[in-house]
Amino acid sequence: MGMTMSQKILAKHAGLESVREGQLIRAKLDMVLGNDITSPVAINEFNKAGFGGIFNKDKISLVMDHFTPNKDIKAATQCKQCREFAGKYDITNYYDVGEMGIEHALLPEKGLIGPGELCIGADSHTCTYGALGAFSTGVGSTDMAAGMATGEAWFKVPSAIKFNLTGKLNKYVSGKDVILHIIGMIGVDGALYQSMEFTGDGLKSLSIDDRLCIANMAIEAGAKNGIFEVDEITMAYMKERADRDFDIFKADEDAVYSRVIDIDLSTVKQTVSFPHLPENTKTVDEITEDIKIDQAVIGSCTNGRISDMRIAAEILKGKHIAKGVRCIVIPGTQKVYLQCIKEGLAEIFVNAGCVLSTPTCGPCLGGHMGILAAGERAISTTNRNFVGRMGHVDSEVYLASPAVAAASAIAGKITGIK
Amino acid sequence: MGMTMSQKILAKHAGLESVREGQLIRAKLDMVLGNDITSPVAINEFNKAGFGGIFNKDKISLVMDHFTPNKDIKAATQCKQCREFAGKYDITNYYDVGEMGIEHALLPEKGLIGPGELCIGADSHTCTYGALGAFSTGVGSTDMAAGMATGEAWFKVPSAIKFNLTGKLNKYVSGKDVILHIIGMIGVDGALYQSMEFTGDGLKSLSIDDRLCIANMAIEAGAKNGIFEVDEITMAYMKERADRDFDIFKADEDAVYSRVIDIDLSTVKQTVSFPHLPENTKTVDEITEDIKIDQAVIGSCTNGRISDMRIAAEILKGKHIAKGVRCIVIPGTQKVYLQCIKEGLAEIFVNAGCVLSTPTCGPCLGGHMGILAAGERAISTTNRNFVGRMGHVDSEVYLASPAVAAASAIAGKITGIK
Repeated sequence: MGMTMSQKILAKHAGLESVREGQLIRAKLDMVLGNDITSPVAINEFNKAGFGGIFNKDKISLVMDHFTPNKDIKAATQCKQCREFAGKYDITNYYDVGEMGIEHALLPEKGLIGPGELCIGADSHTCTYGALGAFSTGVGSTDMAAGMATGEAWFKVPSAIKFNLTGKLNKYVSGKDVILHIIGMIGVDGALYQSMEFTGDGLKSLSIDDRLCIANMAIEAGAKNGIFEVDEITMAYMKERADRDFDIFKADEDAVYSRVIDIDLSTVKQTVSFPHLPENTKTVDEITEDIKIDQAVIGSCTNGRISDMRIAAEILKGKHIAKGVRCIVIPGTQKVYLQCIKEGLAEIFVNAGCVLSTPTCGPCLGGHMGILAAGERAISTTNRNFVGRMGHVDSEVYLASPAVAAASAIAGKITGIK
Repeated sequence: MGMTMSQKILAKHAGLESVREGQLIRAKLDMVLGNDITSPVAINEFNKAGFGGIFNKDKISLVMDHFTPNKDIKAATQCKQCREFAGKYDITNYYDVGEMGIEHALLPEKGLIGPGELCIGADSHTCTYGALGAFSTGVGSTDMAAGMATGEAWFKVPSAIKFNLTGKLNKYVSGKDVILHIIGMIGVDGALYQSMEFTGDGLKSLSIDDRLCIANMAIEAGAKNGIFEVDEITMAYMKERADRDFDIFKADEDAVYSRVIDIDLSTVKQTVSFPHLPENTKTVDEITEDIKIDQAVIGSCTNGRISDMRIAAEILKGKHIAKGVRCIVIPGTQKVYLQCIKEGLAEIFVNAGCVLSTPTCGPCLGGHMGILAAGERAISTTNRNFVGRMGHVDSEVYLASPAVAAASAIAGKITGIK
């Protein structure tokens, strides 16, 4: 019986010829990731378990991104603990304030994960790296601790949904609209513990940034992982960032899928997820009422890449956001931030009345840098709109692409752009 | 008996020919200021007192700067309350995220306070505007509430210390070094409830930014206010920012001072205030031990102006901050931030390994954006180094100029620059 892309990667890392859905395996890890919230818990578990050391100083990434620059004493204490742990074990990929970015924007940018590799991260959006043809998934802090020590983790082999993409996205329609469209179609548990495997002719029109955005939100459909078939676009991206070799795994022709979904990208429309679940989608054409906003957030591990910044700036250029709206733009990494300055995007944002934040997860998870009060409403390019996600339980988050968020900031209400 | 500058301004606003030290007067206000921490308290008092309205919609400034972009739900709720109050009374100078800056950087920049004017603000560093020849002082939120309603406030007329400045500052010595030198000399209660009046030939070598920095920290010597004699530099600064007329008050020749202090600016050295009081000063030459730092903060109402950014960038250009140091640069206003981008300073900061924050009071008062953990040490261009000011009670803050902070960030320890 043939294997899916995900199954092939798992088999390889488990040292097995093949694996089947539901099988429990132990596999070797190429990267173990944690952030300033989850790593301290993992470090405590690591110490409690009495592990003697780490498995590989180059294959652990600790990224201080959620509450940094330190929001409060607790955040400062957590970062200090991570910094000291990284120092003690000489961890190569420790990223602190000034060197950092949001973990899921940073690791791809630095070439730390690539095709055919296996990554776990103590953060649910670790599934992002599937965009590069890796098997990558979120785990708890205890698994992170064991992973750091042993370089291995247990997996239950997932089944898969195949997404056969065709066609090409229209202007101002992006990867974000594709994944919101999919979640709207299959629901927040539509891919529960399954792989979402993206393939088809349509791939060649999707940039790596689009793919990273799509894979990033696989977890919002309940998926174990999202993964894209590796192509020339992937390899060109990796070539600029990493000089190691990669194994490329294609699904077998006779791979079994629980479901095959065809998507013609040219039919995908600008899409918004209404409160309080990502599956509550409407295309912008379907929004008939005036939905006034208090805040727009453009950034996050979902949409904080340079292409996101460019499209937002293109729309905001020479315009000003509506009176009464706060617009917070957050580049995903220091590199993206610097690029925003060099390309003149930073100037466009400030002239349009936005603030440009240093990289941080910030408001996405109600952390800092743009928290909502009761009764307030935000449009946001982040990945979750659960109750209270960006602040008060009586606030609302609408998920959208950078294009729709920028257009909405100008209009003062949720709107698409033509 | 002659009057000081401060006394003359108070007399004029009280509608009196003259006032004398210790006299209680009621005076008309030209500006009433509050921020996102103090205004909500003032608004509650305003409502409780049953005031029917505000005295003048153009003479109240509400600046959302301390915990913005909203740090948490409480901050969001406080800003919302201010926003609604400003909306209800059509307050002209309400500044929210994206339009704002740190209050004491913003108001001078916008020309909202000038020579001979009388300002109260519910923030202790309201004394900043004395740099422009205004009488300006910090008050409690109840006084702010009454000020917003009546346009008046009570004052006890202060006595004064006269600072007779001569000479010219050496390179890399700034207004910050002057005020730290003075506080080191007279102590944190050295000017208790007095005016610090700056005059003399030395004025002509002090930029408005230097003066704003010096007046800003008058409160750190316990002063009621700090005030600079108005000269051509002041008027040139105002001409660019305001088109109203100003009354200029010089001290009478026979004005009585409790003390006259002569300062030859050419003898002032780069100065650092050691924990935990601004008066614990040493010149950089006197620092013999290695004082390693974890963080450098360059910004605040004291040193977040464009000249501060320029000097920091000059020192950081082509260099990189020491490993293990976080350097957080915070322009005082959106205008300064934009200028940092245009002049290439933003790029210098990021390339040097610093983060550039959107304007906020942030870490200065332990708010957010750079809080210290136990045992951590920061050099900071802010104004207070009290126990726990920037975070944990077991952290330390050393106050210095932007030049010294930048040089220290590069060295990884506190150091001067030649």
